[in-house]
Amino acid sequence: MSVSAPQAADTRFGLDRRVHLPGPFALASGQSLMGLDIGYETYGTLAPDGRNAILICHALTGDQHVASLHPRTGKPGWWQRLVGAGKPIDPERHFIICANVLGGCSGSSGPGSIDPGTGFPYAMAFPVITISDMVEAQAALLDNLGVGTLMAVVGGSMGGMQALQWAVSHPDRVRSVVALATAARHSAQNIAFHEVGRQAIMADPAWAGGNYTADCQPVAGLAVARMAAHITYLSEQGLTARFGRRLQDREALGFGFDAEFQVESYLRHQGLAFVERFDANSYLYITRAMDYFDLAAPHDGVLAKAFSSAAKDFGTRFALVSFTTDWLYPTAESKRIVSALNAAGAAVSFCELESPHGHDAFLLEAPEMNRVVDGFLRAGA
Amino acid sequence: MSVSAPQAADTRFGLDRRVHLPGPFALASGQSLMGLDIGYETYGTLAPDGRNAILICHALTGDQHVASLHPRTGKPGWWQRLVGAGKPIDPERHFIICANVLGGCSGSSGPGSIDPGTGFPYAMAFPVITISDMVEAQAALLDNLGVGTLMAVVGGSMGGMQALQWAVSHPDRVRSVVALATAARHSAQNIAFHEVGRQAIMADPAWAGGNYTADCQPVAGLAVARMAAHITYLSEQGLTARFGRRLQDREALGFGFDAEFQVESYLRHQGLAFVERFDANSYLYITRAMDYFDLAAPHDGVLAKAFSSAAKDFGTRFALVSFTTDWLYPTAESKRIVSALNAAGAAVSFCELESPHGHDAFLLEAPEMNRVVDGFLRAGA
Repeated sequence: MSVSAPQAADTRFGLDRRVHLPGPFALASGQSLMGLDIGYETYGTLAPDGRNAILICHALTGDQHVASLHPRTGKPGWWQRLVGAGKPIDPERHFIICANVLGGCSGSSGPGSIDPGTGFPYAMAFPVITISDMVEAQAALLDNLGVGTLMAVVGGSMGGMQALQWAVSHPDRVRSVVALATAARHSAQNIAFHEVGRQAIMADPAWAGGNYTADCQPVAGLAVARMAAHITYLSEQGLTARFGRRLQDREALGFGFDAEFQVESYLRHQGLAFVERFDANSYLYITRAMDYFDLAAPHDGVLAKAFSSAAKDFGTRFALVSFTTDWLYPTAESKRIVSALNAAGAAVSFCELESPHGHDAFLLEAPEMNRVVDGFLRAGA
Repeated sequence: MSVSAPQAADTRFGLDRRVHLPGPFALASGQSLMGLDIGYETYGTLAPDGRNAILICHALTGDQHVASLHPRTGKPGWWQRLVGAGKPIDPERHFIICANVLGGCSGSSGPGSIDPGTGFPYAMAFPVITISDMVEAQAALLDNLGVGTLMAVVGGSMGGMQALQWAVSHPDRVRSVVALATAARHSAQNIAFHEVGRQAIMADPAWAGGNYTADCQPVAGLAVARMAAHITYLSEQGLTARFGRRLQDREALGFGFDAEFQVESYLRHQGLAFVERFDANSYLYITRAMDYFDLAAPHDGVLAKAFSSAAKDFGTRFALVSFTTDWLYPTAESKRIVSALNAAGAAVSFCELESPHGHDAFLLEAPEMNRVVDGFLRAGA
């Protein structure tokens, strides 16, 4: 498959795109959606042989603006350290697609979408979705774009979960998988932290059973959820190095409940900034999808079986990267995936990289990670 | 000092006691309280030479009911594994005191107390207190009970902070210190988790700036705070062993937002049970006191200096215990204290105990911990 018309004149390609794909779109829950909206961006040009397509999958609170200015915050794309001219994923060489996940709040169908059956937003009537459903939505988008097989699917954190799911759900369409700082299932502790966030949102009276309005959103609950989650993205060492017990704009303890420590001030800022750009119900749905994630479960609990077809029938290559201070998806989880891939006979490279930045390391300046991704992609090109 | 009258006839001694000590009671903040209420319990009899007194300090959400039925919940005392007949701390041999901390909600002066200046509860007009203030309140109680020098002061977590503070503030009154699963300062990550809890409480409209009524308390916010904190008390390994990804009362995923996983159900229960027995404003004040805790700060940041008088002038003995899977106050924090005590020339014993139970280990069945505490106390008797 390839795009026949000159791509530049094709409105399917470029920044800040929206597409509506007619349904029904079947979900893992057994429910279905009448149709599918997808917000996405593409960078670069699909090669005539169609072999240079890379799908980038974003994390829990990410979006499709991987390497372009965010239209609402005005901030640079969230992965410009990895994606861009001269970077390992380069629009000069690659055709890059990044879509807002199903359940999201940045152009793709989610709880904020209008339910065609009622004419009102779905809110909590939106069906619960899974990581697998997110992947199916991406597959439908690729069909629409005329992309058959991906050179690579790349993601960190929840993006890595999608990348792994791709190899399980569509081994015929994925030549390689790059999964960074991720896991093949959500642990009890992962679920516990997400549940705290959900309870914080649902405890906010403004949440109103999910039926809040744009003018009255559960911002306090969502901010608390973000604060709790944010701690899990950083390492104890990183927090100590960056903030320690330093005071914010004062010389001595104030004996009050203001944000006296820098780390308090930082966390509050993270919470407040987040509610400007994210939807509370989407947060509920996406965290639920992550908690449900367990690649091995449909395969008798044997992770190697999940990867069997990718490894044996299609020779899909895998690159796994973990970070020393990531305690959200620690190295042990990556090693578990690597063991399963080895057991399945897959081609897999793995490295644990030193970083003080905890889980967030994959989003930050990480030259070694860039070298690993670059080498891996070039080897399979 | 000793009690002259037969102790049995003295209403100062026994279970579920209350005392009002006239003020003014000066606080670290520079403010003062007009008087001091203290809820406490004593067990056993003070020896004629007064040398068998042990003070037990409770943790963040603990109380004075260390080895007696809790009057509100009807549950056994929170440390009956360590304190009781035949236990390392034994009313047959020891005179045991445990007091609700200043700022608490179990009989001691705190934000729920009546402000004598207004006739209404202090709420957020209660002065911010510190671990050092808690220790001074305990010292005032000991004066009232006729206890001069303590054979030992014993505590875990925030109780351990108080125990260490005793050796710094009153080295002349403490012959030995047992500090379990604790730290000499709150780290940035510790502060961050507490700040999330405080924000959850203050985000609850029922909190009403602290001026809630008994009928309308910020239970939702307090429950979220407890849930977030509770995760930090357990280890990832312990959560996995206990809950894993097991479902609660169902065979398959329900594709909804009920508590589907056992760990969710458990956490929600922890949150709901907590609000039955604890006051939201007390939670704010006590977490603040812990965040302020930094034993070295008043000593040029040199922890050894803080212990100098205890070590050199009074020969106070120290026992430190940490647990392998405690990531709230990890072994590294105990080792930091041990290094400082060694540098100060103090007699110190330290051991890290194996446990899968994370920070909570000190409250659970821990035969090795009991042996360590027993041996240490007997050696100094």
